[in-house]
Amino acid sequence: MADGRVTIPLNKNRRATCVMGVGRGLRVKVNANLGTSPDYADVEMELAKLAAARQTGADSIMDLSTGGDIPEIRRRLMDACDLTVGTVPIYEAAAAAARTGGDIAKMTADDILASVRRHGQDGVDFVTVHCGVARRIVESEALGRRVCGIVSRGGMFLAHWMRRHGQENPLLERFDELLDMAREFDVTLSLGDGLRPGAIADAMDTCQVEELMILAELARRAVEAGVQVMIEGPGHVPLDQVEAQVRLQKDLTGGLPFYVLGPIVTDVAPGYDHITSAIGGAVAAMAGADFLCYVTPTEHLGLPRPEDVREGVIAARIAAHAADVARGRDEARAWDRRLSQARGRRDWEAQIAEAMDPVRARQLREARRPEHSDVCSMCGDYCVFKLRDGEETKQP
Amino acid sequence: MADGRVTIPLNKNRRATCVMGVGRGLRVKVNANLGTSPDYADVEMELAKLAAARQTGADSIMDLSTGGDIPEIRRRLMDACDLTVGTVPIYEAAAAAARTGGDIAKMTADDILASVRRHGQDGVDFVTVHCGVARRIVESEALGRRVCGIVSRGGMFLAHWMRRHGQENPLLERFDELLDMAREFDVTLSLGDGLRPGAIADAMDTCQVEELMILAELARRAVEAGVQVMIEGPGHVPLDQVEAQVRLQKDLTGGLPFYVLGPIVTDVAPGYDHITSAIGGAVAAMAGADFLCYVTPTEHLGLPRPEDVREGVIAARIAAHAADVARGRDEARAWDRRLSQARGRRDWEAQIAEAMDPVRARQLREARRPEHSDVCSMCGDYCVFKLRDGEETKQP
Repeated sequence: MADGRVTIPLNKNRRATCVMGVGRGLRVKVNANLGTSPDYADVEMELAKLAAARQTGADSIMDLSTGGDIPEIRRRLMDACDLTVGTVPIYEAAAAAARTGGDIAKMTADDILASVRRHGQDGVDFVTVHCGVARRIVESEALGRRVCGIVSRGGMFLAHWMRRHGQENPLLERFDELLDMAREFDVTLSLGDGLRPGAIADAMDTCQVEELMILAELARRAVEAGVQVMIEGPGHVPLDQVEAQVRLQKDLTGGLPFYVLGPIVTDVAPGYDHITSAIGGAVAAMAGADFLCYVTPTEHLGLPRPEDVREGVIAARIAAHAADVARGRDEARAWDRRLSQARGRRDWEAQIAEAMDPVRARQLREARRPEHSDVCSMCGDYCVFKLRDGEETKQP
Repeated sequence: MADGRVTIPLNKNRRATCVMGVGRGLRVKVNANLGTSPDYADVEMELAKLAAARQTGADSIMDLSTGGDIPEIRRRLMDACDLTVGTVPIYEAAAAAARTGGDIAKMTADDILASVRRHGQDGVDFVTVHCGVARRIVESEALGRRVCGIVSRGGMFLAHWMRRHGQENPLLERFDELLDMAREFDVTLSLGDGLRPGAIADAMDTCQVEELMILAELARRAVEAGVQVMIEGPGHVPLDQVEAQVRLQKDLTGGLPFYVLGPIVTDVAPGYDHITSAIGGAVAAMAGADFLCYVTPTEHLGLPRPEDVREGVIAARIAAHAADVARGRDEARAWDRRLSQARGRRDWEAQIAEAMDPVRARQLREARRPEHSDVCSMCGDYCVFKLRDGEETKQP
C-alpha cells in the first residue's frame, strides 16, 4: 500500500463490514453501478437492485443517482449496504444546478468541490473525479474527429461547464484541495476517464492518451500526499488493443490500481453489453486490470432493473474469475477443480452448490428435467461420466 | 482452397442455398448444435430450435440427435434448413447398438463406417469423425490423471468400444475408407477432438496434444487426397492458454481451418457457459480460429430450448465479430462505426436496426421507456449526445 499499488477504499466516517482491497496480487474485484435517473427515481427500486448486487456477489457498488432527492437516496443506499461504496459527486452538483438554474453549467467551481466534500463527509469510500478532462483536450480538434465525442457524463458536464465559462476544469486546477479532502475523510480518489472512448473507432486516440498522462501525473501527486488513488479506464476498445491499454496505464502510473468499465469490444450488440464487456474485462484483468465495473444488458438502452443487475454482476464476476484462473491464482484454480470433480462424480447437489450462481444452475437443470437423476437431459444414459463409471464397476 | 486453408463444406447431394466458407481471410463463422436426446426426442422442438438459430444468424447447424428416430429427424431438419449442416455419424451407430443390443459397444467397426457413408449419402455437408482417439492414448496413464477424463461423447463411445473389443479406433485404422467416402459425396471431414479437455485442470495435457498431432497428420493426408478437412478444438481452457492452443493447431497443421467449441475459460459458471465460451471464443478467433461452435446457457445442465439457442448463437456471434473487429476486417469495423454514428445522432430506429439482435434491443429500450423519446432512461436529459447537440445549436 505504501507505493499505492494496493488500495483499500474505506472512509473514516463509514462502518462498512465487507471491506475490499484492489490492486497487485489481489483477486480481481467487481463493482455494480446503481442509482436513479430522471426517468426512474424510485429509492425502493434502487434498494432492490442493491440486494440483487449483494446476492450475486458484487464487491462494491457505486451510487450514480441523477434523479430524485440524490443525497437522501445515497444515505438510504449506504445505510442498507455493507459493501464498499463509491459515487460521482459532480452528478449531484450538476443536477442541483439544472433543477434550480435550468442548466448544469450554472454550477460554480465551488459547488463542484463542495459536492466532493459532502460525499466525503457522508462516508463515501471512493469518489470518481474527472480531473483529467483538461480544457485543451476539450477544445482540441482531435475531440471533434471522434465518432462519439465525450460519452462520460461527468466528463461531459465538465466540458459543458468549461465551454460555457471559458475556464479550466476545477477538479484539475484545484487538485490540491481534493487531496486535502481525501486525506480528511480517508476517501480514495478514483481518477475518472472523462474522455474514454465511447465507440470502437475512438479507442486510444490522442484525447484518451493525453487524459491518461494527466491522470498518471495527478496520481503520482496523490500517492506522494498519502492519498489512496485508482485510475479509471475505457470504454469501447477493440479486443486486439485491450492488453496494450492496460500496459499503457500500468507503465505510465508505476502499477497503480486500474478500474475498468468494460472494455466493450464491439459497438453492435446493445442488449448484450454484459457479454461484450465480459470479453474485454476478462482480457483486461488477465493483462493486469484490478477492478471491473460491470455493464448490464440495458447499457446504451435504459436504466437497469434488478434482473439486469444480476446478469451484469455475474458476467463481470465470470470475467474477473477467468482472469484470476489465467493469472494462476491457487484458490481460483481450486474452485474450478472442485466443480469439475463434482461434475465428474455426477454429484449434482455439489455441482450446483459450487456454481457461481446456484439459483440459475438449478433453474436450468429443472427446466429440462432428465428421466434419470444421475445424468442431465443433454446426454441421458449416454453421459460420458456414467459410461466411465459403468466400465469401472464392470471390471474384474 | 488448394492447400486446404479454406474449406467450403457442401455435399454434392445437397442443395443448401446459404453456403459458407471457413478459413484464412474469411469472416469468423458460427455453428449452432441442435438435436434430440434420449429425454427429449421431439422433432417439432428441434425445428423450433432450427428456426431460432436461423433467425439469430447462425452460419451452420449440426444435428447431434441421440434420441428418437435419428435418421428421420436428420432428414426433417435438413429439409427445413438452407444452411450448411454437420453431424456426428457415430451417435447414430451407437444409439442403434444400444437400442437393439443393450450396449453401445455392440456396434461393429463396419457399423461405424457405414454410419459415415449413410450421412454422406443423405447430403450432410460436414461430418465429425473422432479419428485421433488412438488406443494408446485411451489406455495411457495420462488419461487416468485427468479430472474429467474423456468428455466428448463420440470420443467416449470409441474409447468404450476399444476397451471392450481390445481393438484400435476404426476411424483411425480405416481412415483411407473415410477419405474415399468424403471424395464420393464431397463431404468435409471435421476431425473431432475426442480427447478435448473437459475441465480447466485437464487443458493441454499429453492426451490432448498427442491427439492433435495425430489429427494434423491425418489432415495432411486428407488435403493430399483432395478432401476438405477441418480440425476441431477444445473445450475447457484457461484464458492465458487460448492463444497458445490456436497457435499449436495452426503451426502443426500448416494453417488448416480450426473449429473450436468454446473455449470455456472457467468451469464454475454452469448456467452462463454462453458467456464463458464467448470470452474464450473471442480470444481464440482473434488468434486465428476460424469457426466457433456455440455453447448455450444450458451446457452441462440439460438439452437447450429455443430460447437457449438464441442466447447461444448471439453470444458466439459477438465473439466472432469482436475477433473480426480485432483482426481489422473492414466490414466489421464499418458496422461498429455505423451503429455508433446512429447512437451519437440519437437515431434510435437506426441504432436498433443496426443492432446484432434488434428484437432484444427494442425490448430492453421499451421495458424502461424514457419520458423524452430522443434519449434513453439511463441519463434522460443528461444524455451526453443531447448536451453536445444543445451546445452546437446554441453557437452563434
